[in-house]
Amino acid sequence: MEIKGTGIGLGVAVGSVVRMADRLPEPVDRASHLDPEREAERAKASLSVVAEELNRRGRQAGGAAQDVLEAQAMMAEDPTLIDDVVKRLADGKTAERAVFEAFAAFRDMLLGMGGYMGERAADLDDVSQRVVAHLLKLPAPGVPNPGHPFVLVARDLAPADTAMLDLTQVLGLVTSDGGPTSHTAILAREKSIVAVVGAADAASLADGDMVIVDAANDLVVTDPTPEQVADATERIAERAAREAAPVTPGALADGTPVPLLANLGSADGAAEAVKLGAEGVGLFRTEFLFLDANTAPSVREQQEQYTRLLSAFPGSKVVVRVLDAGADKPLAFLNANEEENPALGLRGIRALRHSEVILREQLTALAAADAATDADLWVMAPMIATVDETRYFTTLCAELGIRYAGVMVETPSAALIADRILDVAAFASIGTNDLTQYTMAADRLLGTVANLQDPWHPAVLRLVGEVGAAGAERGKPVGICGEAAADPLLAVVLVGLGATSLSMSPSALADVRASLARYTPDDAKAIARAALAAEGAAEAKLAAKDAASEITTARATAP
Amino acid sequence: MEIKGTGIGLGVAVGSVVRMADRLPEPVDRASHLDPEREAERAKASLSVVAEELNRRGRQAGGAAQDVLEAQAMMAEDPTLIDDVVKRLADGKTAERAVFEAFAAFRDMLLGMGGYMGERAADLDDVSQRVVAHLLKLPAPGVPNPGHPFVLVARDLAPADTAMLDLTQVLGLVTSDGGPTSHTAILAREKSIVAVVGAADAASLADGDMVIVDAANDLVVTDPTPEQVADATERIAERAAREAAPVTPGALADGTPVPLLANLGSADGAAEAVKLGAEGVGLFRTEFLFLDANTAPSVREQQEQYTRLLSAFPGSKVVVRVLDAGADKPLAFLNANEEENPALGLRGIRALRHSEVILREQLTALAAADAATDADLWVMAPMIATVDETRYFTTLCAELGIRYAGVMVETPSAALIADRILDVAAFASIGTNDLTQYTMAADRLLGTVANLQDPWHPAVLRLVGEVGAAGAERGKPVGICGEAAADPLLAVVLVGLGATSLSMSPSALADVRASLARYTPDDAKAIARAALAAEGAAEAKLAAKDAASEITTARATAP
Repeated sequence: MEIKGTGIGLGVAVGSVVRMADRLPEPVDRASHLDPEREAERAKASLSVVAEELNRRGRQAGGAAQDVLEAQAMMAEDPTLIDDVVKRLADGKTAERAVFEAFAAFRDMLLGMGGYMGERAADLDDVSQRVVAHLLKLPAPGVPNPGHPFVLVARDLAPADTAMLDLTQVLGLVTSDGGPTSHTAILAREKSIVAVVGAADAASLADGDMVIVDAANDLVVTDPTPEQVADATERIAERAAREAAPVTPGALADGTPVPLLANLGSADGAAEAVKLGAEGVGLFRTEFLFLDANTAPSVREQQEQYTRLLSAFPGSKVVVRVLDAGADKPLAFLNANEEENPALGLRGIRALRHSEVILREQLTALAAADAATDADLWVMAPMIATVDETRYFTTLCAELGIRYAGVMVETPSAALIADRILDVAAFASIGTNDLTQYTMAADRLLGTVANLQDPWHPAVLRLVGEVGAAGAERGKPVGICGEAAADPLLAVVLVGLGATSLSMSPSALADVRASLARYTPDDAKAIARAALAAEGAAEAKLAAKDAASEITTARATAP
Repeated sequence: MEIKGTGIGLGVAVGSVVRMADRLPEPVDRASHLDPEREAERAKASLSVVAEELNRRGRQAGGAAQDVLEAQAMMAEDPTLIDDVVKRLADGKTAERAVFEAFAAFRDMLLGMGGYMGERAADLDDVSQRVVAHLLKLPAPGVPNPGHPFVLVARDLAPADTAMLDLTQVLGLVTSDGGPTSHTAILAREKSIVAVVGAADAASLADGDMVIVDAANDLVVTDPTPEQVADATERIAERAAREAAPVTPGALADGTPVPLLANLGSADGAAEAVKLGAEGVGLFRTEFLFLDANTAPSVREQQEQYTRLLSAFPGSKVVVRVLDAGADKPLAFLNANEEENPALGLRGIRALRHSEVILREQLTALAAADAATDADLWVMAPMIATVDETRYFTTLCAELGIRYAGVMVETPSAALIADRILDVAAFASIGTNDLTQYTMAADRLLGTVANLQDPWHPAVLRLVGEVGAAGAERGKPVGICGEAAADPLLAVVLVGLGATSLSMSPSALADVRASLARYTPDDAKAIARAALAAEGAAEAKLAAKDAASEITTARATAP
C-alpha cells in the first residue's frame, strides 16, 4: 500500500517503524483545593525548568535548531502567558490545567493567524506538553531510542525532538501532520534526513512495520514486496555513489556548462555549499540581517556580513537579492500591517522604493564588500513587475557602484515582458515558487490550494520559456533560484527552456549534476517541448519522463 | 493647474466649486456632572432619531442608496455600540463624547480590517457626526444647496449625502479621500454623476473656483483657460449627442459585429440595460442571491430570480457566472475565514468544488430557468486555472442540462493554456480586473499598489491576445467582462486582440459603441500591436492613441 505525503528532498530509506510516544492526556478540568499562590509558584518553577532545558538543548544542537529551541524557551517564559496561568489559578484551576489552557489559548491565536505563525502552533504544543509533564512528574515526550536504526513516525515533530535525533539511528522520518514549511520539514532539509511530511494516513502505521520512505516520489510504501525493497536499496546505493562522485562543474552531456549554484540564507552555510560543489551562489537572501531588528542594520554591520560571504567564493559569481520584505516576512520599519492580501501587497522592490534609504544603504554596503573581495558580485531586486521598476533599480545600482544589476522574475508580468526588462537589466533570475503562486493564483503556503502549486504546470513552464528566449536573444544570463531547480528532471526541462544556471539547496546539487550530465542541449529542448505541450502539471511531468527515457533508451541501444 | 485623481466613468463637467461643510469639531473630553442614566436616555434617543431619519431617506431614494442608508441606520442601532456608549457614560463622559468615542473605536476596527470593510469607515463617521450634531442641537452635516448648479467638493461623501444629491444642481463631484470602491464612487457610477475621487489636492479648492472635472482623464483642471473650457464644453456636447444617438448593435466600421453586452449584479437593472442598447448580458453576477444568507438559497428561489432575468432578454445571449465566493466576498457556509491571502485562496470554482451541492443546485436552477424562457443561456465558472477544473465544470454542466458551459479567464494560467482550455470549454470570458491583479501581483483593492493595477499593461494585453488567438483558431467566442471593456479606446485594442464581444456597465455602452464604429478590424489590430509593443501601461495607452489618431487623420485627408 502507498501512503501519500510531501517528500522533503529526494532520498529513499527502508526500515522498520518506531512511533513516537503519544501525547499526554489532557489534564482534567476539576476544581482545585490547593492554594493558588503556591500553585502559581509551582507552575512558574516548571515553566522555568523547561525553558532552561530547551536553552541547554539549543546550545548543544547549535545552528538553526538553536534558534528554534531558544524561541521555544522564550514561549515558556512569556510574561503574558504566565499572567494568564496565574489568572486561571485564581479561578480555581489546577496548575497543570491552568498551564494547559493558557498554552491552548495562545496556540489558537497562532492558528487563527495562519501561514508561518500557524505552523508555529506545534512548537507551542511541545512546550505545553513538557511543562505539564514536569508538573505531573511524568517523563517528557521525546524521541524514542529502540537501540537499532529505525523509521520514526510521529504526528508532527517538535523542534526539540528533531534537534535531538541521533542521525546514526534514524533512517527516515514520516509525519501525519505538518506541511513543507513546518519545522520538521525545515530541519529535515537542513540535516538531510529522508522525510515525508503531511502523510495523513501515517497514523495507521504501527511499531515494527517495514516501510519504504520515498521522498522523491512523495510517498511511503507499506508492506513492500521484496522487489520494491531491492529497488529502493539500489536507489539508496546509487544516490550514495552520486554523492561520493568527484565534484565537477555542472554541464550537459556535450560539455555545455550549466553552473550549479547554492541558495543561501546566511554566510554560515558557505563552506558546506563549497564542499558539495556549489560553483557560486545563485541566491543569497539578506532578510536574516533585518528580521530580528527594530531598525535596519547599519551599513557597517551589513558590509561585514557581505564581506564574510563574498570571501568564501573567490573568483566565483555570488548573486545577492536585496531585502525582500513583506508577504510572509513583514518588517515593522518597512511594511504596513493592514494588507488584506500581503502576497499582492507592498513587498519587495515596491516596499524598498517607498523606503529608499534602506535600499541605498544596502547597495552601498554591497558595493564596499565587493571592492574588498575577489568574488564576482551580482545584485538583484525582488518582485519586479514593470520596466519602470527595473530602470529605477538598475539606475540606483549604477549610481552606487554595483556592476551587475538584475531582476528576480516572480510576477507573470515580468516574464511576459522579459524582452523589455532584459533590455535594461544585466540578468534575470526566476523565482519559481512565487512565479507559480501568481501564475496559478494559489497561495504557496495554503494547504487547500496546494494541488495548484506545481512548477511543472505548462503555464509556468511557458513563462520560464519566455524569459529564456528573451535572455538568449540578448546574450543575457537567465538563472533559476526556486525550488524547481532542485528537481533533477525539472532541472533538465528548465535548461531546455533557456535557463543558463541553476541555484538550489546545496544538498540537491549532486542529484541535479548527475541528471544534467545525461542529456545534450537538444535532448533538454525535446524534453521541455514534451512538458510544455501537456495539459496539466502531472501530465507534463509524465511527458518529460517518457521523453527522457526514450532518449536514454535510444542511446543505450544505439550501435 | 491639474489635480490628479481617479475618474469614475468618462464624463466631463464644467462649473464653480461649492465645498461641503467641514466636519463638526471633536467633542471635548471633560468630566460630566450629569446623571449617567439620564444621559444614556438622551444618547439612545438621538441614535434612534438618526436611525429613523436614515431609514426615511433610504425609502425616498430607493435602489442601491436605500440598502446603504438602511445599513447606516443599523449601525446607529447596533446593541454592542449602544452598550459601549452606556459604559463610557458610566465612566463619567458626556453623551456627545461617549458617542464620539464609541463610534471611533468601531471605525478603527473597520479600518484595521481593510479592504471593503475599511471603506465602510466613512459611512460610520457620517452616522457619528449626525448623532453628535443631534445631541448638540447643531445642524447635521449635509449637501449644501447654493441655489445654482455647482461642482461639489468634499473630503468623502457619506451615502446619506450622495443619495440626497439634487442631480439637476450637481454638475460634478470631487473628493479628496475615497477610492474607486468607495460609496461615493459606487453611487456616482449608478447615478452617472461625473466624478473624480481620491484627488488629494482637492483640499486646496475654495468656494467659487471654476473647475473642469474630467473623469475620462482622471483629473480636475483648476483655473481653466477659455480654450480649455471651450474644449470641455464641446466634449460635453459630443457626449450628449452620442448618448442621444439611435441605439444600433455594436459593430466595427466595416460592419463586423461586436455584440455589446451588460454587466449586471441583479435582475433589477435589466430594463435600464436594454434601454441603453445592451444586446444581452455578458456577465450576470449571482452573489447577490447568497450574500445576505446564512445558507444557500433554495433551487426554487434561485430559479425565480434567473427566470426574471432571462425573461428580460428574449432571443438574446445571457451569460451567467456561477457563485464567485471568496476573496473580498466570503460566505460563511462556503469559505474558510483564516486565509492569509484570500485573493489567492479557496475561491471561485475551487470553493464550489469543495461544496459541490451548492454548484449542483445553482446549475439545476439555471437549467430550469433556461427551459422556461426564450433567452440563450450561457454559464461560466470563475477562477479557472487548469484544464482539469474546466473539464470538471463542463462535465457537471452537461449532466445538469446546461448547453453552453464556459470559463472566466482571470488567472494568468488560464490565459497561457487557453488553447487547451478552449478545447474543452464552449467559450471564454476574460475578467480583466482579476487578470490584471494576478499578472501584476498587485491587490486590486490596495491603494499603495494601485499604480500597478492597469489593464493597459502590455503583459495583460499579451494574455488577452493569447486567449483571443486560441478562440479564433477554434471558432470559439472570447468575451471581455472586466472594467477594461468600458474604456472606449481599450475596447478597440481588446477587439484587435481577438475579443468577439464586450460586456460593461450599461452607462458605458454609448461611448464604446461610438468608438468601435470608427475602426475596421485591421485598424483595431494595428492599434493593438502598437499597445502590445509598448514598455508599460502609460506608454501602451499613448501608443494606442497615436496609432488611432493616425488612422482617423489619414482617413479624413484621403481623397
